[in-house]
Parts: sequence; C-alpha cells; structure tokens
Amino acid sequence: MSAASGDPVHIVGTGLVGTSLGIALSRVGVPVTLEDVSPTAAALARDLGAGALVESGERPASPTLVVVATPPDVTAAVVLDALSRWPEAAVTDVASVKGAVLDALRAAGADLRRFCGSHPMAGRERSGAISARFDLFEGRAWVLTPTEETDPAILGRLEELAHRVGAVTTRLAPTDHDAAVAAVSHVPQVAASLVAARLADLPDSAVALAGQGLRDVTRIAASEPQLWTQILTGNAGAVRAVLADLAADIEGLIGALDEFTDGPATDAPGARATVARVIASGNAGHARIPGKHGAGPTAYTTVRVLIPDEPGQLGRLFQDVGEEGVNIEEFRIDHGLGQAFGLAELDVLPASAAPLAAALAARGWRLHD
Amino acid sequence: MSAASGDPVHIVGTGLVGTSLGIALSRVGVPVTLEDVSPTAAALARDLGAGALVESGERPASPTLVVVATPPDVTAAVVLDALSRWPEAAVTDVASVKGAVLDALRAAGADLRRFCGSHPMAGRERSGAISARFDLFEGRAWVLTPTEETDPAILGRLEELAHRVGAVTTRLAPTDHDAAVAAVSHVPQVAASLVAARLADLPDSAVALAGQGLRDVTRIAASEPQLWTQILTGNAGAVRAVLADLAADIEGLIGALDEFTDGPATDAPGARATVARVIASGNAGHARIPGKHGAGPTAYTTVRVLIPDEPGQLGRLFQDVGEEGVNIEEFRIDHGLGQAFGLAELDVLPASAAPLAAALAARGWRLHD
Repeated sequence: MSAASGDPVHIVGTGLVGTSLGIALSRVGVPVTLEDVSPTAAALARDLGAGALVESGERPASPTLVVVATPPDVTAAVVLDALSRWPEAAVTDVASVKGAVLDALRAAGADLRRFCGSHPMAGRERSGAISARFDLFEGRAWVLTPTEETDPAILGRLEELAHRVGAVTTRLAPTDHDAAVAAVSHVPQVAASLVAARLADLPDSAVALAGQGLRDVTRIAASEPQLWTQILTGNAGAVRAVLADLAADIEGLIGALDEFTDGPATDAPGARATVARVIASGNAGHARIPGKHGAGPTAYTTVRVLIPDEPGQLGRLFQDVGEEGVNIEEFRIDHGLGQAFGLAELDVLPASAAPLAAALAARGWRLHD
Repeated sequence: MSAASGDPVHIVGTGLVGTSLGIALSRVGVPVTLEDVSPTAAALARDLGAGALVESGERPASPTLVVVATPPDVTAAVVLDALSRWPEAAVTDVASVKGAVLDALRAAGADLRRFCGSHPMAGRERSGAISARFDLFEGRAWVLTPTEETDPAILGRLEELAHRVGAVTTRLAPTDHDAAVAAVSHVPQVAASLVAARLADLPDSAVALAGQGLRDVTRIAASEPQLWTQILTGNAGAVRAVLADLAADIEGLIGALDEFTDGPATDAPGARATVARVIASGNAGHARIPGKHGAGPTAYTTVRVLIPDEPGQLGRLFQDVGEEGVNIEEFRIDHGLGQAFGLAELDVLPASAAPLAAALAARGWRLHD
C-alpha cells in the first residue's frame, strides 16, 4: 500500500470537515498534524483529538498527504501554498466546488501532478470544529476529481485515505462534478430558499395552511447564507446554466397560465399541455433519484398506521414492526391540524407490506389502506 | 343546532373526497345520498358504505346540504345545477381553487345566498373511491370561503358538517384562499416538479450524488399531472403572481452569478449580497412555517442516534425513548451511501433533549451531538 498507517497527513483548516477528518484518521492510527489561521480553532481541534498542532506557516515533519479544508473562497490559494511548502506531498482539497479551484491553480502554474481535488459529500447544518464527528464520512460518497495531469499514485493515496475514514469513492471530471452538484444540490437549495422566501409577506392565516409538502420542499431553506454564498458564487457557471433552464420553464408556465387568468380557457390545448408537461417531467426526474445506500430507486410499498400522539406509541409501533422481522426503509409521520394524533407512513419492501399490515391490525393498530 | 343527525346530505361526485365524506358522515348517523356521472364509481362508493345511490340527474329526498365533490373543471356547472335542483338546500363545493368557481357562478347569476365554497385540506397521492378513508378529514383544516351574499345560517350548517367529520374550520375570502394556496401549495408543487425535471437528462453518475436535501425538495414531484393541471390552470392568476416573483428572484440571481462565471469576482459586493439575500430571505420565510398541529413554529432540539439498519433496531430505539417518557415531535432518518446503518434524528422539546440523550447513551446507543 502506498500509505501505511504511519504515513503522516497534514490538515490545513480545522472547521467541521478538517477536524472530523483529523479525528477519524487519528482513531485509525494515522499521524495527523493540524494548522488553522485561527489559533483558537486549531487548539480546539487538537483538544478534540484531531491531531498535533503546527503553528500557521510553520513546516511540520513532511506529510505524505496534505488536505486543504478551508472555506471555498481561499481554497486555491491555500492549495498553491501547500504544493510549494511540501514539494514531495500529494495535495487535495475538500471544497464543494471543483472547477474554480482548478482554474485558479492552473492560472498560477501549479504542479498539478501532485494535486487531485475532491469532495466528500458529508456535512452538517452546523459548522466549526465543535461540531466535528469522528464518523462524518462513514458511508458517504467522496468524489475524486482527477485531471489528466494527476499522478495515478496520488489518486490511489487519496482513495485509500477516503476508505480509511469509511467513505465510498467515486471519480468525476471537475466540470462534471460541478454540473452534477449544481443540479442535485445547489439549485435545489436555491429553489427551497426561493419558495420559502415567498412566505415572508403572507398573512398568518395563509401560512397556517402549510402542509407536509411545503415543509418538505423548504426544509433546507434553513441553511447558512455565508457558506451558501461561497458555494453558489464558486460554482456560478454550472448553477447559472441549471437556473436558466429552470427560469425558461417558469416563463413557459407563466405564459401558459396567462391563457387561463380570465377564467377557464376552453380552447387552449397547447397551454394546458405545457402545464401538464411541467408536472409530468417532474415525475420522470423524480423517478431517477436513487434510494438510500446509493442503490437504484426502489418502489417501496407504504403501510399507513394511525398513532396517538403521546409518549411510547411510536415505540410500541416500531417494536411491533421489529418483532414481525420487517425492516422499515423510509418513515414519515403526517400530523393533522389541531388534533393530537398522526398518520405514520412506513415504506417497506413490497413483499413485506401485506403481511405487516395484517400483523399490525392483529396487534390492534388502526391501519389505512 | 341547525342540522341534527337526521338532516340528509347529498354528495355529487364519488371520488376520493366525496366517498370519504360519505363514509365519515354515514358513520355518525347522517343520511347520505350519492350520485356520480360514472355509475361504476357511484356503485363502488355505495358498496364502501358512503351512502345510498341516486341515479345521475334523479332527485333524491330533499337534502339539507349538497356537497359538490367533482373535479375542479366542472365544479361551477355542477354547483349551478345543484342550486337549481334543490331550491331549499345549502350548496358547497370542495375544489382546491375557489375564485374561478365563484366567478363562474356569479356570471351565471346563481343564488349565492345558499352557496359557500369550501376546501378541506385533505388529500392523498391516490385518487378515486377505492382510496377513500373514513378519517380523511380528521384533524385537517377545512377552509370556508363565504362571500357577503352567503347566508350566515348556511355557513353555520357547513361548519357543523366539517366538525362532524373531525375537521377544523377556518374562514378566508375566496381570493385570499387562492393566494394562500398558490404560495403554500401550488408554487411549491411547481418548484418541486421543475427541480426534479432537471434530473431527467443527468448522467447516472451525477444523479448518484443525490442526498437527503434533494429527496426532500422533490418528494411531491411524484404528483399526478392531470389533477395538478386542473389545479394550476384553475388558480392561474394567483399562481402566476407568485411564479412571477419567483422568476424575478431567479433572474436577479442569474445576473449576480454572471459576475462570477469567469472566476472569483474580487469586487462584486452587490452581486455577492444578492446571492446571500436569496438564502437569507429563505431563512426568514422558513421560520414562519407552523409546526405540527397548526401550532406556531417550535424550535425543537435534535437528538442524533446511530442505528444499525436491521429489523428491530428502530423499534428498540423508539421503545427506549417511550420508556423515558419523551415524545418525539419529528423524526428523520439519514442513510449514508453504501453502508448498512443510518443516523436517526429525533426532534424533541428542548427541555427533554439533554435527559433523553443521557438516558439513551446509558442504554448503549451511540449518540451524536
């Protein structure tokens, strides 16, 4: 193996990702050194077990691999500095946008043989070393974005690092990565934020009609503005392209709806088809989203159970389901307005649904078909 | 009370809502008659216990209240017909758009003293009598949209009907209702569909990076095109107004991102502020969404527990939580890629969080802070 347990890793930037990585590597015996422009943040990461401290700018014992885990807007500069400080080391970064970093490195004439950008698809809604978790990467995708300059040995070293902290590696070209996350992450964030923004000026009586659909669509609208500003501006080209498609669809829909604003249009088949196509194309796209564990989309069957909204009832339900030996693939609970009970929706493999429903009914649960 | 148990109700349209209402009313002793343009649908509803059959066009024993539960695009015509067939009865409809129905009735010179539009906020992802549930309305909001012509006695009769099937009534002007559902339901549906539509042409390697955020935003993108075409075109004016605001925000964001497409813009404070404002305004709107049971938004505290993805583990967790006497307000499970475990997120009242976390740790669960 190119990196035995003893090959040292140096981490620049002790935020959530850098500190979590340091803790995870330290736990499996990898010697880790840390630095951060904030001495407080670096000391906290050290205290949390993320590795040994190195003063910012000081040169630690030569690391095999340097991981740059800074905010996206300074990533390129820090990578460039790392390549120059450790002429033998492989360098990666973990920013959630890849093309902009690479462009900046190329423009600066960096030695790209020793560099491979990467993106662990792991994060939390909280940031900073204090939010670090030793298992932040367990089971998560870690995308590697090699270029044609990347030394294959460097790529192998990076894959091994990701595997040691439990991540699952995949490879994408930097521009493909950026286009992918624009569509599956960045534009969904924008859409959630903009739908939520519409609620700001609504009267209370209108907001009171919010249901589970709105809650789902807008859950990630609670995200942090500063980080997302860096992400969206850092991936401006790819996000812009997806947003332009989205805007064109909305304009088309607005044009179609104009046919109906003066009452029902009896003769607007084209306009009606445009509206229907919006929903139908959403059906088609939705069907492509993988199920959990990165498996292909699975058509689960839903078993619906009425549960009293009081301590212990969910526990009793899940205990009963467990005793029947059935695994719950997805779980939702839908609460009504002004009433103290909920409808639990248990998604299970199709073959398990009917036996589970019968067993739960026999145990006294009220089922819905 | 203006409507004793014996006052008969007639339901026109035996789809999901009409049949569910018939079953719910029959269970509490209200005599119900049914009709539908489809004899098969009507017979099925009768067989399901929704009421007695009346041939389409035939006149049943005079009902106190007629409920029109047809698709939105024929609702006005059927209401008009009902007002003329039963000159003593109150008439309501349950379409999810209200202004268009009222406009059509007004244009036809209908007697609006006996009419009050309404909208039970209850539905399912499946349609038809076969999907009916006796408790479809339990705990749900049922919006009443009286006009100045509406006889207060009619309004009272309708409120009583809604209460008898377990719904919680609220009153809104028809245009206010339509503006509200455009923002909290119709445009979120459009946004979910359009975000999902972007996935249709992505390579598998890109779709594979989908995470929980995308799944949440696009869950309702699986909705039925035909019904939603009627809803969106029926509420064209209000939906168009919200979409226009959304489109303007997107155009503003695209313009701001254009400042960054050629690499990091070191001097684009206005553009950066525009991007930040999109996320910040989403924060503000999101904070207004009520919690479950129609209560104001509650800041729950999240307790995170690592659970093995195998039968019985969720049951054991919920049993343990129940034994601690703690109520779970919201529940999510986040699955990693390619690994057989999940991170359960239990939202509880803030005062319960620390004791629960300590108790679960003592019971051997792995907690995350």
